[in-house]
Amino acid sequence: MDKNSFFWKMVDGRLPTPPCAKTLGLGFVEIDGERGTIETRFEAVEMFLNPAGTVQGGFLAAMLDDTMGTALSATLDLEQFAPTVNLNVQFHRPARLGPIKGLGRVVMRGREMCHGSAELWQSDKIVATATGTFVIRKM
Amino acid sequence: MDKNSFFWKMVDGRLPTPPCAKTLGLGFVEIDGERGTIETRFEAVEMFLNPAGTVQGGFLAAMLDDTMGTALSATLDLEQFAPTVNLNVQFHRPARLGPIKGLGRVVMRGREMCHGSAELWQSDKIVATATGTFVIRKM
Repeated sequence: MDKNSFFWKMVDGRLPTPPCAKTLGLGFVEIDGERGTIETRFEAVEMFLNPAGTVQGGFLAAMLDDTMGTALSATLDLEQFAPTVNLNVQFHRPARLGPIKGLGRVVMRGREMCHGSAELWQSDKIVATATGTFVIRKM
Repeated sequence: MDKNSFFWKMVDGRLPTPPCAKTLGLGFVEIDGERGTIETRFEAVEMFLNPAGTVQGGFLAAMLDDTMGTALSATLDLEQFAPTVNLNVQFHRPARLGPIKGLGRVVMRGREMCHGSAELWQSDKIVATATGTFVIRKM
């Protein structure tokens, strides 16, 4: 963990929020870079909706990716980044317009290969879960 | 397959395009509702970008979901819909701003449970692949 890494600079406003995070309405409630855990929040907006009027699954996948991905990013050193190589998403119930809570965890932090998991909650009900594989690279 | 289903009404303009499809820039190049295959196109735009300046994986997941999902939707009867229950995405290389081609296929069309697969291509290179599980429901 390096508090001068891209992630921490973004968290404390030294670097701008990336576009995808703005689109998803990403915010951070709690970050523990030592334990590799995170609580995020998102905002489901109209442009994510499918014909049934609920959030299209891919946008939930994007939220899960950003939740696990930032849990891992918080542990990275300067000039490291960790692209997702696999994302496996389970959809449990429809998500609607409004706030969504994310809980993310680094399950295995290798020197190169890492595994993470994440959950999304809306109105105290679990909406979707995911596991992911990430590979740490030099920028 | 029913040409009066939601999907076909959307394709021929009798119903409006859903918001998520607009967000992803979804278009249809070729649809074969009998064989359960589809070719889609998307447009990766600035709001999908991660800090590395490439498309955040979740937005690729959204495109893959919409590619498999519409391949299946094209086979549905009136008043059926098929929510995604599982989506497993493999990311092969970064995707950049610009057009992305999707190829989707219904691998197994059960009466209730269905499996699909999809690929995304950009500039003749494969970007991401996915498999998905869907469950057909009555509206």
